[in-house]
Amino acid sequence: MKAKRMSAGAGAGASTRSAGSPAKPEPPGGAVWALVFERGDEAIAGLTAFAREHGLTGSQLTAIGAFSDVTLGYFERTSREYRRIRLEEQVEVLSLVGDIALENGQPKVHAHVVIGRADATVRGGHLLEGHVWPTLEVIIRETPAELRKTHRPDIGLALINLDEA
Amino acid sequence: MKAKRMSAGAGAGASTRSAGSPAKPEPPGGAVWALVFERGDEAIAGLTAFAREHGLTGSQLTAIGAFSDVTLGYFERTSREYRRIRLEEQVEVLSLVGDIALENGQPKVHAHVVIGRADATVRGGHLLEGHVWPTLEVIIRETPAELRKTHRPDIGLALINLDEA
Amino acid sequence: MKAKRMSAGAGAGASTRSAGSPAKPEPPGGAVWALVFERGDEAIAGLTAFAREHGLTGSQLTAIGAFSDVTLGYFERTSREYRRIRLEEQVEVLSLVGDIALENGQPKVHAHVVIGRADATVRGGHLLEGHVWPTLEVIIRETPAELRKTHRPDIGLALINLDEA
Repeated sequence: MKAKRMSAGAGAGASTRSAGSPAKPEPPGGAVWALVFERGDEAIAGLTAFAREHGLTGSQLTAIGAFSDVTLGYFERTSREYRRIRLEEQVEVLSLVGDIALENGQPKVHAHVVIGRADATVRGGHLLEGHVWPTLEVIIRETPAELRKTHRPDIGLALINLDEA
Repeated sequence: MKAKRMSAGAGAGASTRSAGSPAKPEPPGGAVWALVFERGDEAIAGLTAFAREHGLTGSQLTAIGAFSDVTLGYFERTSREYRRIRLEEQVEVLSLVGDIALENGQPKVHAHVVIGRADATVRGGHLLEGHVWPTLEVIIRETPAELRKTHRPDIGLALINLDEA
Repeated sequence: MKAKRMSAGAGAGASTRSAGSPAKPEPPGGAVWALVFERGDEAIAGLTAFAREHGLTGSQLTAIGAFSDVTLGYFERTSREYRRIRLEEQVEVLSLVGDIALENGQPKVHAHVVIGRADATVRGGHLLEGHVWPTLEVIIRETPAELRKTHRPDIGLALINLDEA
């Protein structure tokens, strides 16, 4: 996976052609990134590694591309666990929408995916795992603010808690 | 539903860590908001109330999360009405994409949704109503401009009319 | 299809109400555009013409609306060609997500679409062609940077290559 900063953010220097290498220091947090995954990359692992490396605290992502296999999740209210649905087939990634928030101080990726099969039928769920083939084109928009997750024992998940942010 | 301003917008102060409480006045219109809905909240009512409270005139939104029930719409060309398809089941919100424009001077939310069922099959349509469980994470990006809708009697809908904006 | 610049971008003047007609020159590349397609417009042709007219070099787009017919693509690994799936029916555009990058120096639109049928079942794929009825509401976010595509003979497609950008 490779990344390119498309914009330095909403602050100084953001609208110059040299945004990739700004001449002056900038405050953190408002950048727009393009990430391009390559064959065999796993999407959630790659996004999480990128978010941790760059200290993302409150970001949004969208992507399109294709997977050679994917594991979808559906959160079951009774068991409080994700049911895993695995597709071992080449699929188009029709939309990958998600956010990056802090959970226990570390960036955590939360993404839902819609995939298209060879006959144009569609499946989707919480993205647990997906291997890229041939590409996945992701846009990440940072914000300068923080989103923090709190574990909710009544639900069985960590959810964004704006009172904590 | 709770809201947090993630960025003061494209103008001054947008890329500081203190964006939530800017030290200086800012022009309206470019903010990025995170909205987190809670159990039982209805999404369209909550988005509409937020848009009216904050005077949104031309914004975009994306979201992921889950609903405990949802009513989808399909606009029928002959009857010029929305056919209503109701799902009384727990579903993942795989994508919620929409915009906020002015209709008769008031902010109006227009959103389409793709939902995932327990077996990862998918349904979707115009979002008429959806009750959140356990969360819905929405990002709204304001612009400083206006989008205005005009009722189109030839179609039976109010559509964004850039000549009016 | 009509277009309106919603924001002059991340640089000077972006957060004023007069963004549609800024008083001072601005650097290229950070604008937000609203495009509204009308009945009969073909989406890919319209987006491509807009991107070329405005010299878009690295942009993201999302849209909702409806089509009166659509041709979806699924990229077959063995034949290295898109299988074409055509739907001759009125469908909701539930999500249209994509990007605009340079291929051989010209802006090229890459978009994936999820569509909803009258019974709320869903289909999707790479968007090859879609005719709008009654509207398609597109938001394009420019960046000041470039994304460049390189033809990959090993795959049979041109892919974004960040080493070239």
